[in-house]
Amino acid sequence: MTNGRSYRKGAQRRAQILLSALDLFARRGVGASLRAIGEAIGVSHAALRYYFATRDELLVEVYRTHEATVREEGGPAPAISAVGLMERSAERNRSIPGLVELYATLTTDALQAEQHPVTHRFVHERFRRVRADLAERVRAGQAAGTVPADVDPQDAAALVAAASDGLQLQWLLDPDAVDVRRSLALLERLLPGPGPA
Amino acid sequence: MTNGRSYRKGAQRRAQILLSALDLFARRGVGASLRAIGEAIGVSHAALRYYFATRDELLVEVYRTHEATVREEGGPAPAISAVGLMERSAERNRSIPGLVELYATLTTDALQAEQHPVTHRFVHERFRRVRADLAERVRAGQAAGTVPADVDPQDAAALVAAASDGLQLQWLLDPDAVDVRRSLALLERLLPGPGPA
Repeated sequence: MTNGRSYRKGAQRRAQILLSALDLFARRGVGASLRAIGEAIGVSHAALRYYFATRDELLVEVYRTHEATVREEGGPAPAISAVGLMERSAERNRSIPGLVELYATLTTDALQAEQHPVTHRFVHERFRRVRADLAERVRAGQAAGTVPADVDPQDAAALVAAASDGLQLQWLLDPDAVDVRRSLALLERLLPGPGPA
Repeated sequence: MTNGRSYRKGAQRRAQILLSALDLFARRGVGASLRAIGEAIGVSHAALRYYFATRDELLVEVYRTHEATVREEGGPAPAISAVGLMERSAERNRSIPGLVELYATLTTDALQAEQHPVTHRFVHERFRRVRADLAERVRAGQAAGTVPADVDPQDAAALVAAASDGLQLQWLLDPDAVDVRRSLALLERLLPGPGPA
């Protein structure tokens, strides 16, 4: 049994590791083994394995840490359109390409559910949550009369999430040829929000 | 120096390996080492290494084989809209989820240009080619008066490619929650083609 004090110390250590890994991925990308990650952030392989059973688990927890940080900074999600929300998120990600790479790694790993069960569960649930949020914003647009009533909110939500993901990936590969904001602004014409985008 | 006969035999053997690997990926996905791929398709590791220096090279060539097969089957690309072309491609991919997985692996690997130079070059050039083709179709829609004249064809092309890629990924992860065709039909409203979609 651990007492309260050592539990808190363990939780702090775990949180420190997550922040260091987040910083590492943001600066240098994801392509490293658990051992190499440990070396880069100055944590022994054994310590890393104590807090995270697998590389997958660490990657998922790092992404969760990023999402929690964004939520804390942004406060409650404001009443902007579905596309507007994605524009805001893409704008933030411009400065942290390593995280877009982490996201792409998670979604690709998730396709192999048997080899990556933890990643699969996280990405599957995350997409459901994101689509539900976006669909709610499309409905708000319909209630406000800006989005045509015959647009299916679920279809629109999947489209907006897909466009945002795919555009950020194309932009990372070819920053001069792809402008995420302008392409998303085009999609906003189809699904104008109730407020400013 | 190899003579003409052994050159042809080598080329045939290479083509056979590519078709076997294509079949393997379509059925069982991509998550395997070059050695495991060799075992699964009944080709020695040495023979595989003779034709493909790295796993990356094999994956890229398998995807190229898929694209060439699709082109041969489809004949010259018909005069359909940008979104219509993606709908057609997504429809074809529904029956071969292993190839969508291969595609996702290639695009994610491509983000790490230093570790995956061959993949990076292929994906970078492929996106340029795909966007140029889609932009041409948007211009055709503008010439025909179906797409608004103030839509930037490059922005629209990136958007359509992104939506198609992202939707197929979401569909693979959650087939009951995502309908690629319906979401793309929504995008078609924004960019209607000159002919039937």
